[in-house]
Amino acid sequence: MGFKTIDYENDKLKIIDQRRLPGKFIIIECNRLKDVYNSIKTLAVRGAPAIGVFAAYGVCVGLKGTKTSDREKFFLHLNKIVEYLKESRPTAVNLFWALDRMKAIACKNKDKSTIQIKKILIKEAKCIHKEDEMMCKAIGINGARLIRSGDKILTHCNAGALATAGSGTALSVIYRAKQEGKRIAVYADETRPLLQGARLTAWELNKRKIDVTLICDNMAGSLMKQGLIDKIVVGADRIAANGDAANKIGTYGLAVLAKEHKIPFYVAAPSSTFDFTLKTGKDIPIEEREPREVRRFAGVDTAPKAIKVRNPAFDVTPSRLITAIITEKSVFKKPYGRSLEKVKG
Amino acid sequence: MGFKTIDYENDKLKIIDQRRLPGKFIIIECNRLKDVYNSIKTLAVRGAPAIGVFAAYGVCVGLKGTKTSDREKFFLHLNKIVEYLKESRPTAVNLFWALDRMKAIACKNKDKSTIQIKKILIKEAKCIHKEDEMMCKAIGINGARLIRSGDKILTHCNAGALATAGSGTALSVIYRAKQEGKRIAVYADETRPLLQGARLTAWELNKRKIDVTLICDNMAGSLMKQGLIDKIVVGADRIAANGDAANKIGTYGLAVLAKEHKIPFYVAAPSSTFDFTLKTGKDIPIEEREPREVRRFAGVDTAPKAIKVRNPAFDVTPSRLITAIITEKSVFKKPYGRSLEKVKG
Repeated sequence: MGFKTIDYENDKLKIIDQRRLPGKFIIIECNRLKDVYNSIKTLAVRGAPAIGVFAAYGVCVGLKGTKTSDREKFFLHLNKIVEYLKESRPTAVNLFWALDRMKAIACKNKDKSTIQIKKILIKEAKCIHKEDEMMCKAIGINGARLIRSGDKILTHCNAGALATAGSGTALSVIYRAKQEGKRIAVYADETRPLLQGARLTAWELNKRKIDVTLICDNMAGSLMKQGLIDKIVVGADRIAANGDAANKIGTYGLAVLAKEHKIPFYVAAPSSTFDFTLKTGKDIPIEEREPREVRRFAGVDTAPKAIKVRNPAFDVTPSRLITAIITEKSVFKKPYGRSLEKVKG
Repeated sequence: MGFKTIDYENDKLKIIDQRRLPGKFIIIECNRLKDVYNSIKTLAVRGAPAIGVFAAYGVCVGLKGTKTSDREKFFLHLNKIVEYLKESRPTAVNLFWALDRMKAIACKNKDKSTIQIKKILIKEAKCIHKEDEMMCKAIGINGARLIRSGDKILTHCNAGALATAGSGTALSVIYRAKQEGKRIAVYADETRPLLQGARLTAWELNKRKIDVTLICDNMAGSLMKQGLIDKIVVGADRIAANGDAANKIGTYGLAVLAKEHKIPFYVAAPSSTFDFTLKTGKDIPIEEREPREVRRFAGVDTAPKAIKVRNPAFDVTPSRLITAIITEKSVFKKPYGRSLEKVKG
C-alpha cells in the first residue's frame, strides 16, 4: 500500500495518526497502555479490523513492564489490560474478538512461565495481524467477482487499508477489481462528522491511482437518482446473527436510497465482525460521541455553542437491505436465514 | 424576530452577512450593483424568498447613480441591471420572479419621468418586501394546522427568517405552531457543504427559544428509524407545474427516507416559487458550485487538494414524495394533478 497502518517491530507499536491525515503524515509510537487506549478512543487508529489488530498488540504493550513471574499476578494484570482496552470503543466487535483471543491463548498456556506466555502473546498478535492481511486479500478476491468493468461505486467512511492491517475490506474489493483490469470509478462520501471519507478514503484511493470523486453525504441520493451509482460497498463494525450490520452513521440512509433506486448494496467484512451472541441488530450497542465533533468543523465552531447535539457514531442497516455480505470465506446473499453461521467454520 | 435579514431605509440596502453567522453578527451595506450581485453569489444573502426581495432592492441600488432623463437610455440600463442580477444564481426562481416584476412595473409606467419611475421601483421593491412578510405569516398559519403538540420535526438547510424578509417558510410553520402553544422539538440537519442548518437554523431557532437539536445530514435516517421524527418540513427554491420541488441538496434523500418510514414530508414555499413554465422537475437547472466548498472549510483543507469533487447545490424531490405543499394561499395535498395552478390566482 505504500504505508503501514499498524506496525510492530522490536517491541515497538507504531501507527499512522489518522486524525492528522491528509494534511500531515505522522507516525506515532504507543509505549504505554494508556497511549493504546487513547489512540483507539480518539480515532488515531480506527476501522473495526485495524482496532482488533492494534488492541492485540496493545495487550503486549500493556504487559511490557510486567516483570512478575507469579502467574496469578500476571493473569490478574492481563485481565485488567483486556478489560481496560474493551472500554475504548463499544461498537466494533473485532476489538472484543481480538482481546478475547489474546486472553484465550494465554489461558491455554497458563502452565508456562510468564516470560514464555508474553512471547506467545506477541506471536498471537502477529498472527492476528497476518490473518488480517490475508483476510483483506480474500475479501478483495471474493468481492471483485461482483464488480463489472465500468462500475461507478459509492463508498462511505473508510473501509480501506487505513481501517485494517491489510488492503481494507470494502476498498480491497475495489483495489482487487482494478488489479484485475476492471475500469472503476469511486464516489466517496465525506462522512461527517469526522470526515473519514474526505480525509482517509479520498487520500488512499488517490494514492493508489483509483478514479475518486468526493461528495458530501447528502449528495448520494441525488447521484443515485441521476443513475451515476451502479453499486454501493461499505464495511461493518458488527454484524448480528441475522445479518443486520452496524457501520458508520449514514450507512443505513444509503441502504434505503439503494433500495429506492434498485442499486446493489454490499457489506464487506471479515468473519471476526460477526457477533452470533446477538440475534438482531437491535442488540448492537451504538457509541454516542462528543457533541463538539458535530458542533465544530475542522477545528472551527459551526453552530452556536449552546446548541444540543446528537452524535451517534454508527447506525444499523437491517439485513433485508443488504444485497450480499462479502467475507474472506465467501459471499453470502440475502435472504440470509441461518446461512451466515457458515462463517464460524 | 430580533433581527432584520434585509433592510432598506433612506436609499440604503443593508443585510446580515450570513456567511459570518453564527460566530459574528455583521451588517453589510450594498451601495453598488456589484455588491448586490456578489452578496447573492457568495451567499451573504440566501434563501429563495430573501433573494427575491433583495434583488428587487438591488435594482434600485443599480439605478441610484443613473441621472439620465432619457427614457430609452434608462430602460436599456434597467434591462442590463436585471439581466446581470439574473446571472447571480440559477436555481431560485423567486430571483427571476422579483426581477421580472420590477421590470414589468417600470414598463407599465414607461411614459412617466425617469425620476418618477425610480420612485415607483423603490415602492414596488418595498411592496415585494411587505408581501414577503405577509406571505411568511400566512404560510405559518396554514402550515401550523398540520402540526400537533409533541411533534418532533426535522428540517434541512435554512428556510427561516434568514431565508426570507419575514419569519421564514418552513420555520414560520414551527414558529406559528409554538405561538399557538404547541410543544415542538426540532432536529436541524447541519446541511453540508455550507452548513446553513448548523450556522443559521440552529442560530435562529435558539434565538427564538425553540427546542433544537443539531445533527449531521447522515444521521437523519437513523433518527427516523428510531421513531424520533414525526414530520419533515423544508423550503423550496423552485417548484415545477407538477409539484416536483428543487431545494437544498440532501432534501431528496430525506424525502426517500420519509417514504420508507411513513413520515409526512412537507414543502413550505410562497407562490412565487412556482414555475409553471416547467412541466416537471427535470427541467429545473441545478447550480453546481465551486469544488473548494466541499474540499475545504474555514481555510482548512479536509481532503487531498487534487481530489475531484461534485458540488450540486440543489436536488429535485419528485412530487410523489411530497405529502403536501404549504403556500401562503392554501395547503395542497398530493396527488397534485393540476390543482397547483390555483396558486396563480
